[in-house]
Amino acid sequence: MNDLSLDPRLDNDTLAISDLPLCQVRLMNDCRFPWLVLIPRRRDIREVFELNQQDQSQLWREVTLLGQAMKAAFGGDKLNLATLGNQVAQLHLHVVIRKCDDSAWPGPVWGHGTSIVYTPDEQAKMRAHILTQIEGIDFS
Amino acid sequence: MNDLSLDPRLDNDTLAISDLPLCQVRLMNDCRFPWLVLIPRRRDIREVFELNQQDQSQLWREVTLLGQAMKAAFGGDKLNLATLGNQVAQLHLHVVIRKCDDSAWPGPVWGHGTSIVYTPDEQAKMRAHILTQIEGIDFS
Repeated sequence: MNDLSLDPRLDNDTLAISDLPLCQVRLMNDCRFPWLVLIPRRRDIREVFELNQQDQSQLWREVTLLGQAMKAAFGGDKLNLATLGNQVAQLHLHVVIRKCDDSAWPGPVWGHGTSIVYTPDEQAKMRAHILTQIEGIDFS
Repeated sequence: MNDLSLDPRLDNDTLAISDLPLCQVRLMNDCRFPWLVLIPRRRDIREVFELNQQDQSQLWREVTLLGQAMKAAFGGDKLNLATLGNQVAQLHLHVVIRKCDDSAWPGPVWGHGTSIVYTPDEQAKMRAHILTQIEGIDFS
């Protein structure tokens, strides 16, 4: 995991999974939802349009391919892709698998209830499962 | 406004503004937030990854440029870009200007309180303002 200056709240709430060409992939430490966060390894960026054109294209490519891989891995009823940043200024994108029977459905996951953190064993299993799903994908 | 088969709920909640190369731009009829919705003119698409590669690139280009234009037009503190689709299956992307003193801040806008619709005069002014902002942009 290289060259990423991470907001303390993102650091606290998420677990590092992998580095893609532009972004670090992190798992939201909340076992209620299969939920990844993508963080571009660029400093002082708050909005997508502040990235240069090449980085913008790469960001959207990584988000879309990762979303597709998550949908294939976890099933579910709908993929949620979003960049909000109302609470953490550093640019980050959410990739969340939603299910009709999850606790927040059909509302948004942000601000919903209280996180339930993974056990160390669950974390390890999730990490391995996600890495297996994305290892064959050409994100470049 | 051509060749768009629109989900009845989207049709009811939003007002047509303009057609970009791929998407129709519509204004969410809720004056609490400057809020646009982008809807690709493609049939039977629920997820971004179901679009072909060219359409995916065009979609993200339109979302990013439109977001940048909205931020320039309305100021605000943060841009929210999202595709959720938990309530309306047809693929649509939200472009929302958020302000630290808006009624939902820092929570998400979706599911927050009750919409306050624009008056006809306010609608006309918003439409004209948005069209002025985007008329010089090359979305292609």
